[in-house]
Amino acid sequence: MEEKQSYADKPLRCIVKLGGAAITWKNEMEKIDEENLGIVSKHLREAMMGGSTSTSSVKVLGMDWSKTPGSAQIPITPHEFGDQSTFDLMSKFIIVHGAGSFGHFQASRSGVHKGGLHHPLVKAGFVATRISVTSLNLEIVRALAREGIPSIGMSPLASGWSTSKRNISAADTSQVAKSVNSGFVPVLHGDAVYDDLQDCTILSGDVIIRHLAELLKPEYVVFLTDVLGVYDRPPTDSSAVLLREIAVDEDGSWSIVALEHMNKQVEITVAAHDTTGGMVTKITEAALIAKLGIDVYIVKAATDHSFRALNGEIRGDIPDDWLGTVIRSSKQKQKSS
Amino acid sequence: MEEKQSYADKPLRCIVKLGGAAITWKNEMEKIDEENLGIVSKHLREAMMGGSTSTSSVKVLGMDWSKTPGSAQIPITPHEFGDQSTFDLMSKFIIVHGAGSFGHFQASRSGVHKGGLHHPLVKAGFVATRISVTSLNLEIVRALAREGIPSIGMSPLASGWSTSKRNISAADTSQVAKSVNSGFVPVLHGDAVYDDLQDCTILSGDVIIRHLAELLKPEYVVFLTDVLGVYDRPPTDSSAVLLREIAVDEDGSWSIVALEHMNKQVEITVAAHDTTGGMVTKITEAALIAKLGIDVYIVKAATDHSFRALNGEIRGDIPDDWLGTVIRSSKQKQKSS
Repeated sequence: MEEKQSYADKPLRCIVKLGGAAITWKNEMEKIDEENLGIVSKHLREAMMGGSTSTSSVKVLGMDWSKTPGSAQIPITPHEFGDQSTFDLMSKFIIVHGAGSFGHFQASRSGVHKGGLHHPLVKAGFVATRISVTSLNLEIVRALAREGIPSIGMSPLASGWSTSKRNISAADTSQVAKSVNSGFVPVLHGDAVYDDLQDCTILSGDVIIRHLAELLKPEYVVFLTDVLGVYDRPPTDSSAVLLREIAVDEDGSWSIVALEHMNKQVEITVAAHDTTGGMVTKITEAALIAKLGIDVYIVKAATDHSFRALNGEIRGDIPDDWLGTVIRSSKQKQKSS
Repeated sequence: MEEKQSYADKPLRCIVKLGGAAITWKNEMEKIDEENLGIVSKHLREAMMGGSTSTSSVKVLGMDWSKTPGSAQIPITPHEFGDQSTFDLMSKFIIVHGAGSFGHFQASRSGVHKGGLHHPLVKAGFVATRISVTSLNLEIVRALAREGIPSIGMSPLASGWSTSKRNISAADTSQVAKSVNSGFVPVLHGDAVYDDLQDCTILSGDVIIRHLAELLKPEYVVFLTDVLGVYDRPPTDSSAVLLREIAVDEDGSWSIVALEHMNKQVEITVAAHDTTGGMVTKITEAALIAKLGIDVYIVKAATDHSFRALNGEIRGDIPDDWLGTVIRSSKQKQKSS
């Protein structure tokens, strides 16, 4: 009982965004990138277990006992689980995922983000969007559970999250906190939700993360994407430069640091990038998190760089051989240096 | 806008339990009874639309736009949905389903109902149970959406339902009510939830229905099962008699009415039946609902009898050619006769 008590008192270590583009095939409707999702799940498990090689060699006890292909052998025998739980060693994580090629078609086809549930097409699109994103949520929970991560799917709509003109107006995070303190890993997702002023809208995973970060104060936040990090222009442009660090001032303004050969306005250069990937929204939300003194790492999923970010290895000085973008408070930076 | 206003003010018409045994193959793990589920979905649509033949000939506009086999043709063209929404004609329903051959194995194998999340097996079973029941929920939402029912899956765990020694201690029904008033049909399910005293347990669909009925006061409640109704002994016994009506007194005691040739104690005879199907729990919950003055119909799914019950045709006198069991308050009965 004492051990449990101390587990509940542990701080939240990390909120992870599984970017839709990182875990699905963007151009193929409702197709999961199984390989990436599998690697990310392994990385998450190792990071949760503290990243030591000794825990990674522990036999994985799968928690998806469905008869779906790939799920654990059943029946599980009780003694396989033993008495000494490896879960107790776990640090606290929350996972939020995007939609990628799930939900996007249904939402954009019907204009759910613009609201208006009295339109039959919007109402049908709301239903269709939720079917698609919750099916992705289920598959992600399954992939994590197969790796032995005690994951709990939680839909923002069911949890009472709602917006007012697309800003969060209500969000019950008590069940998320309760799940974390009970040793589970909540898995939330971008969702179609009710909006006080326009009936309904789409609540993005990035906004969910910012809200959770404000309330639950994780040690750091990791955005897993399909590119190495934030660039000064679209990464498809061969002259694009990866931004190593973005410092956020208390007034919310940004500046690029640790890049001697350039001195551009991020706001402008990143805006040009936005048409291809909504990076401005991501950076805006990330900057709001960084302002709280919480480091944000934007990094390519399923790479050694993302594993190190998940594992908390970027918290002090940024290692020279690490590729990704750190967004942190300029105050925080002064403190650590 | 005026129409919407009046829709929100409409009373809740019906809470429906889709019994696990009625929509899954009990003896085959995680197998849906597609035929029954399809018929039930059609019945529900017709009952929601008022049961008139004119509405049943309206073209069904499917709301599952996933690429899964059986889902609607995509892309849907906006004009197919028109301006005049048939949803506005809809009466308000809430659906709650059981687990059947989903979740049962995972829950019983690990003892989730007995609690104790510090046991690794219980924790893993909690995760595995939720994966199984939420996958059933998704498939039911899909089947309903294919019939044009604007259904919204809602997991009790995510919605903050919890128990204290297996009795409901918290349940946020505001999002359920909000969904109903917005013209959607919430679809809840029996779930693994947190328990204040024993960490976790299984919250059954029957208990969820009783709680929703107490708070949201539907006109009537329908339990769809795999037998014709409540019998005086296991229905596999060839001498079993179908109970036509059970009257519930204000003190909660029951008596069988409208069956001249028998006068047995239901409590005793039904208890013997319980080993095969948890019928006592169902009747206990049903009696608590009936005590509120809300009729409960226990009836075989996917039959004309269940359609008539869903359609509200059993509300006054019980038709002679109707097969099923009515559980109603003895006070209510005196009022209507």
